[in-house]
Amino acid sequence: MATTIGIDLGGTKTLAVRMENNDLVDEAKLSTPPSEDLVGNAAAAIRAVWTDDIEAVGVGVAGLVEWPSGAFVWGPHVAGTGLQVRSRLADLFGVPVVVDNDANAGAWGELHLGAGRGYDDMLLVTLGTGIGGAIVLDGRVHRGGSFAGEWGHMLYQPGGAQCDCGKRGCWETVASGPALVRLARDFIAQNPEGTLAKALGGEPPTGEAITGAADGGDETARNLVAQVGEAFGRGLCNLIAVLDPQVIIVGGGLGSVGESLLGPARRVAADALHGGSHRMLPPILVAALGPRASAVGAALLAEDLATGRLSLRVEQRA
Amino acid sequence: MATTIGIDLGGTKTLAVRMENNDLVDEAKLSTPPSEDLVGNAAAAIRAVWTDDIEAVGVGVAGLVEWPSGAFVWGPHVAGTGLQVRSRLADLFGVPVVVDNDANAGAWGELHLGAGRGYDDMLLVTLGTGIGGAIVLDGRVHRGGSFAGEWGHMLYQPGGAQCDCGKRGCWETVASGPALVRLARDFIAQNPEGTLAKALGGEPPTGEAITGAADGGDETARNLVAQVGEAFGRGLCNLIAVLDPQVIIVGGGLGSVGESLLGPARRVAADALHGGSHRMLPPILVAALGPRASAVGAALLAEDLATGRLSLRVEQRA
Repeated sequence: MATTIGIDLGGTKTLAVRMENNDLVDEAKLSTPPSEDLVGNAAAAIRAVWTDDIEAVGVGVAGLVEWPSGAFVWGPHVAGTGLQVRSRLADLFGVPVVVDNDANAGAWGELHLGAGRGYDDMLLVTLGTGIGGAIVLDGRVHRGGSFAGEWGHMLYQPGGAQCDCGKRGCWETVASGPALVRLARDFIAQNPEGTLAKALGGEPPTGEAITGAADGGDETARNLVAQVGEAFGRGLCNLIAVLDPQVIIVGGGLGSVGESLLGPARRVAADALHGGSHRMLPPILVAALGPRASAVGAALLAEDLATGRLSLRVEQRA
Repeated sequence: MATTIGIDLGGTKTLAVRMENNDLVDEAKLSTPPSEDLVGNAAAAIRAVWTDDIEAVGVGVAGLVEWPSGAFVWGPHVAGTGLQVRSRLADLFGVPVVVDNDANAGAWGELHLGAGRGYDDMLLVTLGTGIGGAIVLDGRVHRGGSFAGEWGHMLYQPGGAQCDCGKRGCWETVASGPALVRLARDFIAQNPEGTLAKALGGEPPTGEAITGAADGGDETARNLVAQVGEAFGRGLCNLIAVLDPQVIIVGGGLGSVGESLLGPARRVAADALHGGSHRMLPPILVAALGPRASAVGAALLAEDLATGRLSLRVEQRA
């Protein structure tokens, strides 16, 4: 067991944790400055929990990360492209560093310390501002060429709503926090005197306010959350058609809402399952590590690096 | 090296091959009787190429096959459900038998003797009456719970055309032989005097006739084939978003049409690739073994079984 640091570097918030023997012993929350200095932002987070016995550092970044080189390629919510994050942090801190996509790191955390314990084929699907995720097969993260798990950008509705990625009709345009807000805004525009407008106190809708109103019993809010849940479930069914996993673990802010969203998702997924009456829907579970999954998983990747279970040697491709 | 038999058991046609040292030494084509006697149909095909030195038999079946038990669960084009195909054939012939989904068998064939040589992360995507396929990761077929690769039934168009599976708007409703025929039929109904109707000689359109007219230079036929190619490419892009493979190999009857279909597919996939300007589209290649891929792959699975490289021990799930 090693003492390691894990960083979850998001578009607006960064979380740093220090872990010893699989226990979280320190953490720090920072805002992510909107600069292109991704390496500087990560370094500030590392320093916030640094101690002299650190043996390795892991960083999860929201976006496309080249594996195993740890170069940040591109992301819609994090500035900068083509940055050699891993090698520059290793030079700065003088310890081994591993840099991965944030969802891959989160899956590693959930597999070892969260809802994925006991499984070896699992999907983590994160539902928040968008949809991301990661694939675990035979107990290992499967990254493909580097960028597996970017299923938020599967086509869901040809010619549908504009996505942050530049395309139209991606899955996350109908299943995400912004999709829920858009549904509520449209409903309120047509029903300005309805219960939902009153439940939100006349404020512009936010994801949290809408799910709060749903939990508080507002019928309209419940229907809108269910509608997003159904779109989420239909996409999960696509992932089952492709990968037939043992279990699906749902993370992210909106993913933690619970049954008001996951109930409709499960119903739709069961209904749309190919050969459905001849097979079982895999369990669809809520992630257990909450907003710490990626930072904890990054710290576990760092531990794997420190103990030699993980090698970042770049293999030659055929 | 062993002498083995491989069977590709489809809805209307069955192919049997006998292989020695990776060479095909005998083959037989049979029609598949439309009965529920799947075991009897497979046995007839095995007998058609049987010799006394056969060490193992492999069977690929079009539909959901439980792995590694080799039970046929269900398929839209093959009669019967819940049949213990593997154990019953092993009892009948007295040799080890492996039964797999036909696309999984085909992928194993392409990986070792076809277009997949030199790769270890590949997708086989079969395009014909529907869309099927298989996943190879780290040089092994990844079957998930058993049924991975059933991506023809990913949602493509909510509320779209009726699919054979009972749902609406599956990917294969817009990208398949029947989808191409439907497009041509609709066009001819509106343009009964057009060049396409003439190119088809007044006959009802078939997939082969339409692709033939396209190859013969008919502009309308070329546009229809391109339209199916674009829908195919958009779905391939979904698979890349999920799995980011090294290579995609396209099999099946319509998949062998070539550039008139794969050209538009590649253009759409490149255009829709998430983070597209920052990454490369994987190669999209035509399968090399043609209609023999599944039978040859099944014979290779049988060889793996005979030589001990493959074990069908049923593992306990967590």
